[in-house]
Amino acid sequence: MRVEIWSDIACPWCYIGKARFEEALAGFAHRDGVEVVHRSFELDPGRAKGDVAPVIDMLAAKYGRTREEAQGMEEYVASQAHAQGLDYRVEGRTHGSTFDIHRLLHLAKARGRQDALLDLAYRANFAEDRSVYDDGTLVRLAVEAGLDEDEARDVLADATAYADDVRADEREAAELGATGVPFFVLDRRYGVSGAQSAEVFAQALEQAWQGRALQPVGADSAACDVDGTCEV
Amino acid sequence: MRVEIWSDIACPWCYIGKARFEEALAGFAHRDGVEVVHRSFELDPGRAKGDVAPVIDMLAAKYGRTREEAQGMEEYVASQAHAQGLDYRVEGRTHGSTFDIHRLLHLAKARGRQDALLDLAYRANFAEDRSVYDDGTLVRLAVEAGLDEDEARDVLADATAYADDVRADEREAAELGATGVPFFVLDRRYGVSGAQSAEVFAQALEQAWQGRALQPVGADSAACDVDGTCEV
Repeated sequence: MRVEIWSDIACPWCYIGKARFEEALAGFAHRDGVEVVHRSFELDPGRAKGDVAPVIDMLAAKYGRTREEAQGMEEYVASQAHAQGLDYRVEGRTHGSTFDIHRLLHLAKARGRQDALLDLAYRANFAEDRSVYDDGTLVRLAVEAGLDEDEARDVLADATAYADDVRADEREAAELGATGVPFFVLDRRYGVSGAQSAEVFAQALEQAWQGRALQPVGADSAACDVDGTCEV
Repeated sequence: MRVEIWSDIACPWCYIGKARFEEALAGFAHRDGVEVVHRSFELDPGRAKGDVAPVIDMLAAKYGRTREEAQGMEEYVASQAHAQGLDYRVEGRTHGSTFDIHRLLHLAKARGRQDALLDLAYRANFAEDRSVYDDGTLVRLAVEAGLDEDEARDVLADATAYADDVRADEREAAELGATGVPFFVLDRRYGVSGAQSAEVFAQALEQAWQGRALQPVGADSAACDVDGTCEV
């Protein structure tokens, strides 16, 4: 069974939703039969590289709130993160373009290190004082995830590297009807939208697992059987 | 949408079923959105390479019938083939191991020529006086399908080449519950067993296409929207 997760590093509910999903997966009897694939989704696709602003200012401007109210929103998200056992830094976080991180995550996917890099990038952005909008930090995260430093540098230096993969993921999300992230798709059959509780994820895993059996169309017809017999 | 078809070159219902499926596909409104993948299935997996016998004799022995009765069975299959616009040679056909043909079909898949080679192999086996149990003929079929002659020869000479791919296809067929071929699987969701009528294939395509929409699990939950807004 395959679970695809569309998410953005800049999305706190993706950070929390991933942990909730993983809690459900850890308790799922058939977890060894589940393959997880991460897919790209930019919340702010038009944002220029280098256009980095404090998250609190961005929230205040977007919602027309005071900086105190924006901070209150972040504190609520932080409480949800803490409840899931995740660190969350309310002050000092920044917001920027995540296009390069997604390109790097595709390199990591090709090298079998995608989940490792994603966890490190989430941690850097939400829990640590490390900006994922800085190329130097991204290269260090890539190396920590087990990628080759020069290869990571080359991908960051070439804006076309894995760019088509990021766009393809985003197109697929739109085709599947995603209007936000995190967006979980199980076997291209069941969709889970948002940072649901671990219980809902557990239910989705169970439902998708049960639903794996093929649905027959048409009665049996002329065929050759495994013993070589051909019905006539 | 992806349609996987498990079949064997030695299976007349696979030859006929493919044509019936293709008739349905040609009339399907969303045919451009359908990808067809052919998968390996040997009806006679234990058969040694070089163990080639007349089909009529094989049928007579398998069903305990006279050669005349066996020929009558072939004539019935031929009538079904003709009804589908396919040539079918009742006399002179032979039966043998299809393992090498499946290996070659996997090479053709890697080169984007799988469907071409499959059609040529079916034609050679059922309609023409060309034995698909002969390496020289297989190489010529491969070249006609657009493959490189030396590459085809190399694959045939190395019994391990693409052998794992053939076995993997056969394992998957068993896991999906196939007990015979042709076996059609649409989006890993719907199964069609046997050489059904074009009408049944049309219904399966329609049903699978309609069923592509994701089934939601759980109400909407905390998420970040495409405009960058994160619900709090």
